Amino acid sequence: MSIKVADYLFTRLRQLGVDTVFGVPGDFNLRLLDFVEPSGLRWVGNCNELNGAYAADGYARIKGLSALVTTYGVGELSAINGIAGAFAEKAPIVHIVGSVPRPKQEARIFVHHTFGDGDYRHFASMATHVTVAQANLIDPRLIPDQIDWVLKQAILHSRPVYIEVPDDMPDVLVETKNLEDVIKLDPGRQTESDAVALEQVTERIYGAKQPLIIVDGETRAMGISTDAENLVKLTNWPTWTTMFGRALINEQLQNVYGIYTGQFGDPSWKKYHDTADLIIIIGPHYSDTNTSIFTALPNAAVTVAFSPNTIQIGDDIYRDVSKSFLNRLVSSLDASRIAKVEGPSYSIRTNKALDPSGLITQEHFWEKMNGLFQEGDLILAETGTSSYGSQAFSVPKNARLFNAVTWLSIGYMLPATLGATLAQRDRTKDDTTRSFLFIGDGSLQMSVQEISTMIKENLNVIIFVINNGGYTIERAIHGRTQRYNDVAVWRHTQATSFFGANESHSVNNNFVARSWSDLERILSNESIQKGSGVRLVEVFMERDDVCGILLPLMKTRIANGD
Amino acid sequence: MSIKVADYLFTRLRQLGVDTVFGVPGDFNLRLLDFVEPSGLRWVGNCNELNGAYAADGYARIKGLSALVTTYGVGELSAINGIAGAFAEKAPIVHIVGSVPRPKQEARIFVHHTFGDGDYRHFASMATHVTVAQANLIDPRLIPDQIDWVLKQAILHSRPVYIEVPDDMPDVLVETKNLEDVIKLDPGRQTESDAVALEQVTERIYGAKQPLIIVDGETRAMGISTDAENLVKLTNWPTWTTMFGRALINEQLQNVYGIYTGQFGDPSWKKYHDTADLIIIIGPHYSDTNTSIFTALPNAAVTVAFSPNTIQIGDDIYRDVSKSFLNRLVSSLDASRIAKVEGPSYSIRTNKALDPSGLITQEHFWEKMNGLFQEGDLILAETGTSSYGSQAFSVPKNARLFNAVTWLSIGYMLPATLGATLAQRDRTKDDTTRSFLFIGDGSLQMSVQEISTMIKENLNVIIFVINNGGYTIERAIHGRTQRYNDVAVWRHTQATSFFGANESHSVNNNFVARSWSDLERILSNESIQKGSGVRLVEVFMERDDVCGILLPLMKTRIANGD
Repeated sequence: MSIKVADYLFTRLRQLGVDTVFGVPGDFNLRLLDFVEPSGLRWVGNCNELNGAYAADGYARIKGLSALVTTYGVGELSAINGIAGAFAEKAPIVHIVGSVPRPKQEARIFVHHTFGDGDYRHFASMATHVTVAQANLIDPRLIPDQIDWVLKQAILHSRPVYIEVPDDMPDVLVETKNLEDVIKLDPGRQTESDAVALEQVTERIYGAKQPLIIVDGETRAMGISTDAENLVKLTNWPTWTTMFGRALINEQLQNVYGIYTGQFGDPSWKKYHDTADLIIIIGPHYSDTNTSIFTALPNAAVTVAFSPNTIQIGDDIYRDVSKSFLNRLVSSLDASRIAKVEGPSYSIRTNKALDPSGLITQEHFWEKMNGLFQEGDLILAETGTSSYGSQAFSVPKNARLFNAVTWLSIGYMLPATLGATLAQRDRTKDDTTRSFLFIGDGSLQMSVQEISTMIKENLNVIIFVINNGGYTIERAIHGRTQRYNDVAVWRHTQATSFFGANESHSVNNNFVARSWSDLERILSNESIQKGSGVRLVEVFMERDDVCGILLPLMKTRIANGD
Repeated sequence: MSIKVADYLFTRLRQLGVDTVFGVPGDFNLRLLDFVEPSGLRWVGNCNELNGAYAADGYARIKGLSALVTTYGVGELSAINGIAGAFAEKAPIVHIVGSVPRPKQEARIFVHHTFGDGDYRHFASMATHVTVAQANLIDPRLIPDQIDWVLKQAILHSRPVYIEVPDDMPDVLVETKNLEDVIKLDPGRQTESDAVALEQVTERIYGAKQPLIIVDGETRAMGISTDAENLVKLTNWPTWTTMFGRALINEQLQNVYGIYTGQFGDPSWKKYHDTADLIIIIGPHYSDTNTSIFTALPNAAVTVAFSPNTIQIGDDIYRDVSKSFLNRLVSSLDASRIAKVEGPSYSIRTNKALDPSGLITQEHFWEKMNGLFQEGDLILAETGTSSYGSQAFSVPKNARLFNAVTWLSIGYMLPATLGATLAQRDRTKDDTTRSFLFIGDGSLQMSVQEISTMIKENLNVIIFVINNGGYTIERAIHGRTQRYNDVAVWRHTQATSFFGANESHSVNNNFVARSWSDLERILSNESIQKGSGVRLVEVFMERDDVCGILLPLMKTRIANGD
């Protein structure tokens, strides 16, 4: 039996849970795109390829896998920073590039989208830096195995892969045989190493007197969020997350304290961490930004770290452990032998009375948002003050929070909102799926046009634009008053109308908040509470107003007169 | 004597004619940016890095060199497609990347904007594919020579270069000695090869009976546009340009026919080319798109080609010829020995009477624009129907035309308009510098936000948005009626207001043309004729209406019911 290359590829994507494909058409991928919708996938064209990659990243973090189609050279290179971000933060995007037909490549002729040097491998070579596996579909005898091999690695590593489809290949026939089996990950053999590690970890758990758990972000990529939550429930031990690990487990559980930020957070929390005799960290991701500049790193001597394929207990590393390790651990634990532990006190949020006519401040804005969030919501906070502000968010059960982790490419979060919201809708089949995006005026300028795709796709997104006159996070780092940290002044409340929303919708769904009373009025507005479509709230804040870890930085800038 | 690294670098850029620096701030380039404006350079922050690279490309094509500053990883990768385009079409951009401070790189620690693998060379390695020279400024003993070496190659090859400046380097002191001499290109020794080639070419010229000249686009990169024009004037021979070569010489000269498009153009022109006994091509660039799918390639047997460092006469290649070769050739020619030649007849543009209420058509729209253009204008026609339409443009003396050449990255032309207009203003010191941008609704969506930078910089740009419901050029190639060639519907005339132009300006400077009478009225409007700032004309055309080389393609699509 035989099947066309494009049908094979898209069938595999469908089997793996992809329902939507992102991208931009270009002359070398048009024949491939013919196969997208007939295969049952939905095509969502993006305004540009970088936005497409960001959207695919957002989709992958919700749905477990995503696909992006670009064209040779111009398209794929426009997308490559988005692919790199997905590589850094482990979002599995299948980046499919429609490339030059084989005869032209073989003849090394000077076609457009090339450098005229006859070398058709430049861009594939660049892609090796940001993808875990690559395939060039030029030989029908190999294609089914190539596709399967590459997709398997995308899932296994939860990182992007790269597939080139020359423009003469989409309807070439290949063998169907592989399709009889769905691509499944080997759960991993339970090695001797597994058994020893299980014994060691169990022993540490039973022996712990001042333990804690940290749920970090690679828990998602490892596919063990449920196991992590079960451990947190079973032990009832004090639990924290990182920025990256936010909301991967139910943060409303009584023993979940919130995000641990080392020396920048609650001193009693830090003391508890510093004197803990067992720290279980799941899915660790030790970047400077995700560890509050390394001050939240767990004490290695008392740490049990669950990484992909690896359990580290103190200095001992157990390799090639199976994916089910944490699951088996939780199932095998005897709850009666686990210490009942009193953690440090909870941070108490004071609801300070705010002057209704007063300026909106970073100190109090973020916690005010908590009244909006409901179960199942997606909450996305862009790199900058928004991401730090999101530390004050109380995320409901089954809601998700995206924030700045490691790649920190400003402009990411808006298209990621598009992708994540579509993924959530694909996943739940619920048209009322809703997202909140918090983004600064500087970041917004990077990828603003993707608002039009949200509108086109009838998504429900509430965008809070923090208008503080430029790149405030950069001002906190350096050049507080420098002109290079300014951005052009836009009329944000005209965005939805410009980008094509129904005019009567735009009239009723754009808001400006300059004071606390403005904000109260807007938050209780029916459109925000129960409306649909894209809504936008422009929130004015002072240029140098920051929160969290940025506060001491900005104070230093101001003190130095920088 | 010593000077800070950043001062050294920016002094060199100033010496080489760069007045404006493009880019986006990021935490690893802020200290570097402190030095931009004190050095006398103007900082123009872009909305995102890809737009910045496109702007820098446009600037370089007018001013001979440009500079772009981005930040490590996220910024530079966002820009890389723009750098690749500049590499493909020979625009020398100095891409300066603010990178991670040396101590952190050496310690291989996991900072943000990295993959956490301790490898800080990924992005520099990717950059080698799209730049002709690279330097990592980590050793003060080498830095002045490194900078000079890299800048020299940018100018020599007219292609991008890559300079990494770790964040701890901008104020490190280096030796000033090199600065005593301005970076100058070796004009090249006049080798024996030169003399032989000169003799050979001269002989061919004196012997020619049916000669012609083609001015192609690398003439600009070779810096010999004036020499080319002098040859065209001296010989008075029939002369054509390519898409890439448009307006590099005065196209108003009587013997300049226009653009030669091989089998897609005037048959009498093709016959003249096919039977010529001498074809002189200056700055050849033989991509499929620039040679009307190779049908406009000159007959090699009768061709003398002037490429960088190389003269090819028939099958004979003379290497390492000096840059002054063409100049010396023109000076040495004896006009009395050059044949007086009658070329083929000129294509006659018929001014067909158009129904005032009729739909605006590609067939007649473009030539109607010719009434607008004046000496010194910049005219930019984006990839798509606009670029093909621009073949009908009659470009005034000292005006320039940018169109689709080889890289064909849609989204390029709008930020390139920003960059080229700034360059023209820097060059002429004339605030009335004016540009016309022709762009389709699909391309516009790629990089639309850079309109705000045009507004912020008080540029005079008239934007014609061809609104034909999506990617019409792709429809002509494949998938004429497919949904993937649609784009979201925007309210284009709200762009300038959204992007921050004065509201009263926006009211008077946005136009919609649906018929010929609308268009006539708009073209004669004072705002278009004599106004200033960013003006926008939305021109509706039919979805499947195309012109030029696209016409037979679209006819085939329609005939096949594709």
